[in-house]
Amino acid sequence: MHYPKDLENLINYYQKLPGIGEKSAERLAMATIEFSNEEINELSDILKSAKQNLTRCSICGHLTDKDICNICSDKNRNKNLICIVEDYKNIIAFEKSGNFNGTYHVLNGLISPVDDIGPEDINLASLINRLNKLTNPEIILALKPTIEGEATTLYIKKILENKNVVISRLSYGIPIGAELDYLDNVTLDKALEDRKKISE
Amino acid sequence: MHYPKDLENLINYYQKLPGIGEKSAERLAMATIEFSNEEINELSDILKSAKQNLTRCSICGHLTDKDICNICSDKNRNKNLICIVEDYKNIIAFEKSGNFNGTYHVLNGLISPVDDIGPEDINLASLINRLNKLTNPEIILALKPTIEGEATTLYIKKILENKNVVISRLSYGIPIGAELDYLDNVTLDKALEDRKKISE
Repeated sequence: MHYPKDLENLINYYQKLPGIGEKSAERLAMATIEFSNEEINELSDILKSAKQNLTRCSICGHLTDKDICNICSDKNRNKNLICIVEDYKNIIAFEKSGNFNGTYHVLNGLISPVDDIGPEDINLASLINRLNKLTNPEIILALKPTIEGEATTLYIKKILENKNVVISRLSYGIPIGAELDYLDNVTLDKALEDRKKISE
Repeated sequence: MHYPKDLENLINYYQKLPGIGEKSAERLAMATIEFSNEEINELSDILKSAKQNLTRCSICGHLTDKDICNICSDKNRNKNLICIVEDYKNIIAFEKSGNFNGTYHVLNGLISPVDDIGPEDINLASLINRLNKLTNPEIILALKPTIEGEATTLYIKKILENKNVVISRLSYGIPIGAELDYLDNVTLDKALEDRKKISE
């Protein structure tokens, strides 16, 4: 009502994005129409090209613009060590910390009986396939500590039981810098459960 | 580095927008590539169409997709009452509150000697032009209370001195709902200065 049609369309689009409310969408749309014609054309090309070229790595399921992603095709990475994540965004978090030299496997979801998501609905078959080709592989389960994350962790542990695979999961505990007073009970319980001996 | 080129380009674009840092830009870009092909094409069209069709009202300078904006072409609005604003975004704020039945004039900037912006650099000539065609017009200066806003207010007041124009400005004071304790000194001073008698 207050806006010309095109601007309103742009505001509606921005509101589809996560964390963007009405006010922010207005601000972003108004800033966008200040872009030069070249910038608008460039942006329009980027959008189409991103949608067209981005695909999933045929080995690990990471987002890539090639058939095999940069990580899987990197000769310096340990192919025998596979970190299992729910989403490709998790890979980016690990890569930013920069201390992991193995490879990844993206499940693209977690087992969730409530939502009717079973083992066959997530990217597990290709993981088994990968593991079968390796000798003494190690996997690290880096799934979030929710019911779905735990269910998926347990399921993977179970199907790999008779295979020669070393399995670990990320440790749970107190985040660095946190105040004990403000931690939730579950985290405290987990930190207690996962406690580490410092003298032997 | 961590992202495929197209995704990185999209992140860079989002970072150009106001209030969007690296983290938010990543989140928005990743959400954008989840859009369907249709949505991406539609968005791309909206962007181009917005840039192409949006222009400024030839009377008041408001953003519009016609020659004359909805407000200036609305027969029910009082054309003799003109609210002077810095930016078309201010119009939207007034229109949302919905209590103003006059028209607007967008200066597209404020006089600022420091930044070498003089009266001829803002949309003033067309204001004089508008006022000359009206009988007993009234203007309301709705400029922000900064040095530039005050300079512009004073300048407009001065050039209209000998013309038959009623001039007012928005009142300064305590925003509704504010705690006196947390108000800045300048606002308190202004509220004192602009105090209103409640008994006569």
